[in-house]
Amino acid sequence: MSDTELRNDGRLEDEHQLDADDRLRPEFVDAVLDAVENGDTEEAHRLVEPLHPADIADLFELTPDERRAPLAAAVADLLDGDVFAEMNDYVREQLIDALDARQVADIASELDTDDAVAIIEDMDAEDQREVLRAMEPDDRAAIEEALSYPEESAGRLMQRELIAVPEHWTIGDTIDYLRGHEELTTDFWEVFVVDPAHKPVGTCALSWILRTPRSISMADVMQREQTLIPVDMDQEEVALRFQKYALISAAVVDGSGRLVGMITVDDVVHIIQEEAGEDALLLSGAGEGDINEPVVDSYKARVRWLIANLFTALLASFIISMFETTIERMVALATLMPIVAGVGGNAGTQTLAVTVRALATNQLTQSNTARAIGREIRVALLNGVTVAVVIGVGVSIVFGNPMLGGVIAAAMMTNILVAGLAGVLVPVTLDRFNADPAVASSVFVTMTTDSIGFLAFLGLATASGLVG
Amino acid sequence: MSDTELRNDGRLEDEHQLDADDRLRPEFVDAVLDAVENGDTEEAHRLVEPLHPADIADLFELTPDERRAPLAAAVADLLDGDVFAEMNDYVREQLIDALDARQVADIASELDTDDAVAIIEDMDAEDQREVLRAMEPDDRAAIEEALSYPEESAGRLMQRELIAVPEHWTIGDTIDYLRGHEELTTDFWEVFVVDPAHKPVGTCALSWILRTPRSISMADVMQREQTLIPVDMDQEEVALRFQKYALISAAVVDGSGRLVGMITVDDVVHIIQEEAGEDALLLSGAGEGDINEPVVDSYKARVRWLIANLFTALLASFIISMFETTIERMVALATLMPIVAGVGGNAGTQTLAVTVRALATNQLTQSNTARAIGREIRVALLNGVTVAVVIGVGVSIVFGNPMLGGVIAAAMMTNILVAGLAGVLVPVTLDRFNADPAVASSVFVTMTTDSIGFLAFLGLATASGLVG
Repeated sequence: MSDTELRNDGRLEDEHQLDADDRLRPEFVDAVLDAVENGDTEEAHRLVEPLHPADIADLFELTPDERRAPLAAAVADLLDGDVFAEMNDYVREQLIDALDARQVADIASELDTDDAVAIIEDMDAEDQREVLRAMEPDDRAAIEEALSYPEESAGRLMQRELIAVPEHWTIGDTIDYLRGHEELTTDFWEVFVVDPAHKPVGTCALSWILRTPRSISMADVMQREQTLIPVDMDQEEVALRFQKYALISAAVVDGSGRLVGMITVDDVVHIIQEEAGEDALLLSGAGEGDINEPVVDSYKARVRWLIANLFTALLASFIISMFETTIERMVALATLMPIVAGVGGNAGTQTLAVTVRALATNQLTQSNTARAIGREIRVALLNGVTVAVVIGVGVSIVFGNPMLGGVIAAAMMTNILVAGLAGVLVPVTLDRFNADPAVASSVFVTMTTDSIGFLAFLGLATASGLVG
Repeated sequence: MSDTELRNDGRLEDEHQLDADDRLRPEFVDAVLDAVENGDTEEAHRLVEPLHPADIADLFELTPDERRAPLAAAVADLLDGDVFAEMNDYVREQLIDALDARQVADIASELDTDDAVAIIEDMDAEDQREVLRAMEPDDRAAIEEALSYPEESAGRLMQRELIAVPEHWTIGDTIDYLRGHEELTTDFWEVFVVDPAHKPVGTCALSWILRTPRSISMADVMQREQTLIPVDMDQEEVALRFQKYALISAAVVDGSGRLVGMITVDDVVHIIQEEAGEDALLLSGAGEGDINEPVVDSYKARVRWLIANLFTALLASFIISMFETTIERMVALATLMPIVAGVGGNAGTQTLAVTVRALATNQLTQSNTARAIGREIRVALLNGVTVAVVIGVGVSIVFGNPMLGGVIAAAMMTNILVAGLAGVLVPVTLDRFNADPAVASSVFVTMTTDSIGFLAFLGLATASGLVG
């Protein structure tokens, strides 16, 4: 049975929209864009209408910049809040810019606070004011309050729509309340139990409410051990807390402990994915690394690190220049020296990636730092011996010069060991000083492995009397 | 208000267990280990007892290998299934090895199928058989069935415990069923509606059940558009699907479309985090990159890539050797050449990280590959011009040789452009051939930037007549 058939989804009868990996098929995207280009709005609408909001968002991301506005015009009535909430930030900004304040206000009003805030927070101050003016007073107040919290904090991430009930209610009271109030949210997985001061005293999963007789008190069913999120907590910490305690939703409290909002796991999943994925980008100095980012922004983010890398390369260059006489006497050294630096750099990057990951997931703490360093030294010794033997024997044979083989083997061994040490010490030190270990570690580690690589190899070649 | 006070958690009265980042404080870990070492089991037990299972798991991870068994003995009655389910694979394996089959069977019996499978799947075949023999027939059958699915598939990840009701039931029928059957799971967030052949026809979030009058039919409340997971789907695809459609739970179906299990988002969150985080590790060739992995396993994983890197470095080395005469005449070239290769390598890694990320999150598909390549070329041109000007002017002045400055600028420009192209083409090509783009890309890209760096610089130096 094919994957698409399995999707038991009335809206996905056309099995040619998605490939086996849930990506929109290029043929489908082309068909939609061709229809738009040919002015066949009806056909474009017919094709897009059955898509899930997340897939409509993807369609816009896959559409070239200049063709997004015509596409948006063709399927305007399908562009609801859910589509915008699922869309890449850059693509959304571009589309939002093309809409007037009234339209943005309508879209934002459909959404939970957190999604509305995500759309509005990126607009410039003037547009933001205009959109807020066009909204209902209630919605506006909620969004203005959210915007008063720092970016990437729990206050921005939470929704105000939640279910809170007093401790003295029974299960029956809670069910009657939920049945009797049309206006309540349907987007909740747990009910919060609060005291008269609106401070959370317990949490009750919906499955418990459904499995308990009506007469039982909420206080007897709720779980008193709950994980609360301070409203100013950074979203990365929120994500780690959700993950560690396997939370589905959590109450957000203000400075005085009062319940002010709720965060649900589906909002956190994106953050977990982003935060975990950004290590590779940060380590390479690629900034946000979003393929929808404007070219100039990518350039600005990346060139800084290339220039930093250039300056650290100058140090290596200076070290080589100290051995110019040695190289002149034996030019084979110039041929071989990048091997020592390169493999050392790779070994450093390996240790760095492991350490940064362990720090990000709270697996590496002060309690086991010494052990982690010892572990990396042992791995480096094994790697160093292996690579040193291979290159040492190879060079001895190819150049017919065992002394040269010995020198390169010793230099390689030294550099891989230094790489292992730098790969763990640099990020751990940055972390100790509350700097993001993924951000600048690479530059320091590469500088170290390049410099030590050239210094050890050329220095040993000189000191050993290899070069007459 | 401090973070710890906010945790409103009866079990966490001692505010000295966790630091602000939810990590166990080193002083606390030391206090527990000292108590164990001094034979004060009572004190160790008193300290560990209030911890959340996830924190007890962390405690074992933070404890040195040789001290884990005594700690386990001291707090044996606190080591329930939840603690093992939260524990790092390597640490768990080590502890499980120390237990007999009866004890492992007891622990596994407490857990949902997915967590029990996670504990049992890593044991060797003989131990596995022994544990399964010691289990109740029902539990054994469920686990044996799960083990029949491929590793890292939906079948391993799902739990069999779920709530499925027939379409003709009312909300009231469902609530009565849930209240009347003690033995049902409490760990569910949605109810699945199935037809007589046990094929899912709809899903109903618990909040809808609670908000709807008893007399209404399930068929009228359930959502018919549901995302089904084939039992043999790879866990990475499962994770992407959960993320894309913001799922809390999803039905797992077998080849004939029958409901066989359920996956909940809390099981997927770990996978999202692991899959997103592994890019940095794979790109560097660090394998699984787990700090709890035995040293020999880390060595085996990493040394392969170092040796691969060594062989690609030989190609660069060979290219340099073709220009030995040039270098002999102007040894400054040997000093400067690593700069061109190094900065080019960094530029390639940046593009590579961005591309691998975009492929992993399904943002880069066939529809926008050409655009992504065009984008990277433009970023590379901007980066290339900037870095080339800086190094060109610098070298012209320092060496008093504008010709040398021109040569290094042109070589740098070329290499950064090639780096951008290789950084996007290599992973896209690997992905097109269904290979993991994060795994081998780095080796190819580094080989390219090293080779082109030396070739362009030394070649231009020779061809331009710079060297007399």
